[in-house]
Amino acid sequence: MIASPTVASRSKNHLPFGEVRHGRLYGWDILSVSQFSRADLDAIFDVAKEMRHMVERVGTFDLLKGKLLACLFYEPSTRTSSSFIAAIERLGGSTIPITQGVQFSSVSKGESLADTVRTLECYCDAIVLRHPEIGSAALAAEAARKPIINAGDGAGEHPTQALLDLFTIEEEFGRVDGLMVTMLGDLKYGRTVHSLARLLALFDVPLNFVSPDILGLPPMLRVELVKAGVRLRETSDLHEVLAESDVLYVTRVQKERFESIELYNQVKDAYVITPKTLEAAKPDMILMHPLPRVGEISTEVDSDPRAAYFRQVENGMYVRMALLAMVLGKA
Amino acid sequence: MIASPTVASRSKNHLPFGEVRHGRLYGWDILSVSQFSRADLDAIFDVAKEMRHMVERVGTFDLLKGKLLACLFYEPSTRTSSSFIAAIERLGGSTIPITQGVQFSSVSKGESLADTVRTLECYCDAIVLRHPEIGSAALAAEAARKPIINAGDGAGEHPTQALLDLFTIEEEFGRVDGLMVTMLGDLKYGRTVHSLARLLALFDVPLNFVSPDILGLPPMLRVELVKAGVRLRETSDLHEVLAESDVLYVTRVQKERFESIELYNQVKDAYVITPKTLEAAKPDMILMHPLPRVGEISTEVDSDPRAAYFRQVENGMYVRMALLAMVLGKA
Amino acid sequence: MIASPTVASRSKNHLPFGEVRHGRLYGWDILSVSQFSRADLDAIFDVAKEMRHMVERVGTFDLLKGKLLACLFYEPSTRTSSSFIAAIERLGGSTIPITQGVQFSSVSKGESLADTVRTLECYCDAIVLRHPEIGSAALAAEAARKPIINAGDGAGEHPTQALLDLFTIEEEFGRVDGLMVTMLGDLKYGRTVHSLARLLALFDVPLNFVSPDILGLPPMLRVELVKAGVRLRETSDLHEVLAESDVLYVTRVQKERFESIELYNQVKDAYVITPKTLEAAKPDMILMHPLPRVGEISTEVDSDPRAAYFRQVENGMYVRMALLAMVLGKA
Repeated sequence: MIASPTVASRSKNHLPFGEVRHGRLYGWDILSVSQFSRADLDAIFDVAKEMRHMVERVGTFDLLKGKLLACLFYEPSTRTSSSFIAAIERLGGSTIPITQGVQFSSVSKGESLADTVRTLECYCDAIVLRHPEIGSAALAAEAARKPIINAGDGAGEHPTQALLDLFTIEEEFGRVDGLMVTMLGDLKYGRTVHSLARLLALFDVPLNFVSPDILGLPPMLRVELVKAGVRLRETSDLHEVLAESDVLYVTRVQKERFESIELYNQVKDAYVITPKTLEAAKPDMILMHPLPRVGEISTEVDSDPRAAYFRQVENGMYVRMALLAMVLGKA
Repeated sequence: MIASPTVASRSKNHLPFGEVRHGRLYGWDILSVSQFSRADLDAIFDVAKEMRHMVERVGTFDLLKGKLLACLFYEPSTRTSSSFIAAIERLGGSTIPITQGVQFSSVSKGESLADTVRTLECYCDAIVLRHPEIGSAALAAEAARKPIINAGDGAGEHPTQALLDLFTIEEEFGRVDGLMVTMLGDLKYGRTVHSLARLLALFDVPLNFVSPDILGLPPMLRVELVKAGVRLRETSDLHEVLAESDVLYVTRVQKERFESIELYNQVKDAYVITPKTLEAAKPDMILMHPLPRVGEISTEVDSDPRAAYFRQVENGMYVRMALLAMVLGKA
Repeated sequence: MIASPTVASRSKNHLPFGEVRHGRLYGWDILSVSQFSRADLDAIFDVAKEMRHMVERVGTFDLLKGKLLACLFYEPSTRTSSSFIAAIERLGGSTIPITQGVQFSSVSKGESLADTVRTLECYCDAIVLRHPEIGSAALAAEAARKPIINAGDGAGEHPTQALLDLFTIEEEFGRVDGLMVTMLGDLKYGRTVHSLARLLALFDVPLNFVSPDILGLPPMLRVELVKAGVRLRETSDLHEVLAESDVLYVTRVQKERFESIELYNQVKDAYVITPKTLEAAKPDMILMHPLPRVGEISTEVDSDPRAAYFRQVENGMYVRMALLAMVLGKA
């Protein structure tokens, strides 16, 4: 397992309301993909499938009635916060949404985050945290008695995104082992790609990495994946690997990552997916994207059944419902 | 019926949760007043009256339990968003409020709105949209599988405002036909006035339009109303028509509409309603205003029983409850 | 009782939903600590204790099901708004959170606030108001038919903070009479300290005030307390009174209160509490702080059982639950 030994999956088995609770992930902080074993992933996805089934049947249900989730977003993220709010609401719980008025103390940022988290946990049962600084989620988890769910800590991790990506592959094919996954775009800075690659390393999945030279895989991640036994291939030409890919995972090339606008313009349109691109792909390939897109996938592709990115969005709600239910001991 | 043939009342009769649903307006996008026939209006107002009755009796009830409403506001509107949030909460449903972090992609605005809407509908059952650009609600409705409710698209329409205005007249008098309605203030740019006038054209209601010359009725709307058989009268002198009016609908003269501050100052105080003004009005006339007011109606008037503008606010909640219940097939 | 005769505890015994309601505080606006008698405080704290008991047992319950609380915050306050949202949600009610898009009319602020409040009360059952201007809560209460709860009106009052402070003392010791309370820090501008001192004047509690000379107690408050029979002592040396204190209430010295940065730097670190400070304190003393802190209490102190400030935060939720239940006639 490619696990960072520095991130322990700390269980917070306090029983504040006198209840007996149990089950995998109960009381965990969700900080990093490196916390999860294959057995954990199987368990999460089993619960996520049940969540989909229940939402399709009844819309919402009262599994987490009586639970309050604080959504503490130090930077806006409509998609992620909406997904978590929908998840807790569909489980019969409630939210304290905090996206306004969260300020950084210029003096002691860490201290202030710790105090904010310790204040919020007096009111709620778990905290979803989005923060622009790497390591902030771990710091919050250290301070808190109640579970912290990392919804993105800057250049660090966004583990629920990687989980929903993997769940989508599993849902679309009914399996993960034996598939060939190709990742395209910004592989140097793309947090999403890094986390998903680490999760896929737990499976028997060859990985292709397609990017312009200046946006290639970080050397340390390459070493990590190779050590984990991943068969990987790097190229700058999508067509070398497209025809044999089962999954094509496209990411956005973010302007703010570049040192100059010239470098950005040079590569930004290099890998735009159009209906023409898909002609060379397998008929049952799936096309994924973490969204938002800014032109990397033409909207003409949306009506192609292989376009899986909005199904991927919906899966995010089911995975987050599963995590909340499990962390709060109700799955 | 003065209906724009370009706005179809598209029904989205998907049954995502395996339920049988039915009824008028079920699955509709609510985009424009031109969607509604008199029979539709009668049906909406019947449901709105039931909603008032239920709120007065029990406060909230579980008609929309299990339903999640996304409130996507690209520009702030405390009144409108509060009204929709109250409406869904009083029906036992929940909201995903989105007023922060919604950004415009400078490149492809429409595309970005479409993607945002297609993302949100993965989590929720209907979307209320406020957006500064005309036509945005129609664009969103085109992209979405789930119902879109237009809560204002710039200089375009704000159909729920017009519906609550008409419902207020109907509630106050028990009828609409045969009343004389006078509209005052900014008739050139006042979206509210235009929409209400179009709805009133479905009834036997003579309309008076009172404004300074430079803020008169747009010629195309005048033609449209005349073609629909409306008896209309335009004047710059309120006293020509005040004594025979049953409804006086006052609107704000918005500074941002004027080319120069001189032009604004010239007319802004021309039509301020005071207790003195009301001396010439019928004892059972009602005074309406879409709010917020900035001096067009003196606060001294508030205690006059003819001041109907806060009753009008309350009616907004009942009308929006009715629309939500009908669109979601639960009325 | 040190009561300002200008603040009446106005009861708003309208029964909008046909219910019979009763009990102490029913229909009150909560504007100032000067509204409360000792019997009121006893009643509030009895209900707050029940609230803690229920939350510990079941998390949330449906005492205020059907009630909608508008949280109208003209300035952000994560802590206070989160506490009120948690309080109403744990009672089975719902919120309309308004923190965005609330704008000041530059012309007629009071009028605009009155109209906003009169609009919101058309949708909700009570309004929590935070506003930067002194007297704003009283103005809103004057305009509103439904109860207004003051969550801070600038340099004015923040009565629910003072109530939770007093409730914490009562919870920690099982009594208030006979304790010695020491207040430390900014006693000149500290709204929190002033309100708590006024409440403590209802009890048999000697008060020590420790501050730098330039941040001492306002002369008028000193006179008020002395007239009420309070035995008070003022000093700039904490060690004169620390050993005999049962409660040490620390406040933040706010930079924005000072005329110059030099004056601020001169006193800001004068009274920082560290583990060393506590060596001289009673073993069962409690250390309180309204939070947020910016260095006045070292984080090393957090693990000392005498550090009561996070228990104080939690008590805030129970006191606000009690107030909401009582004001809405459901306690």
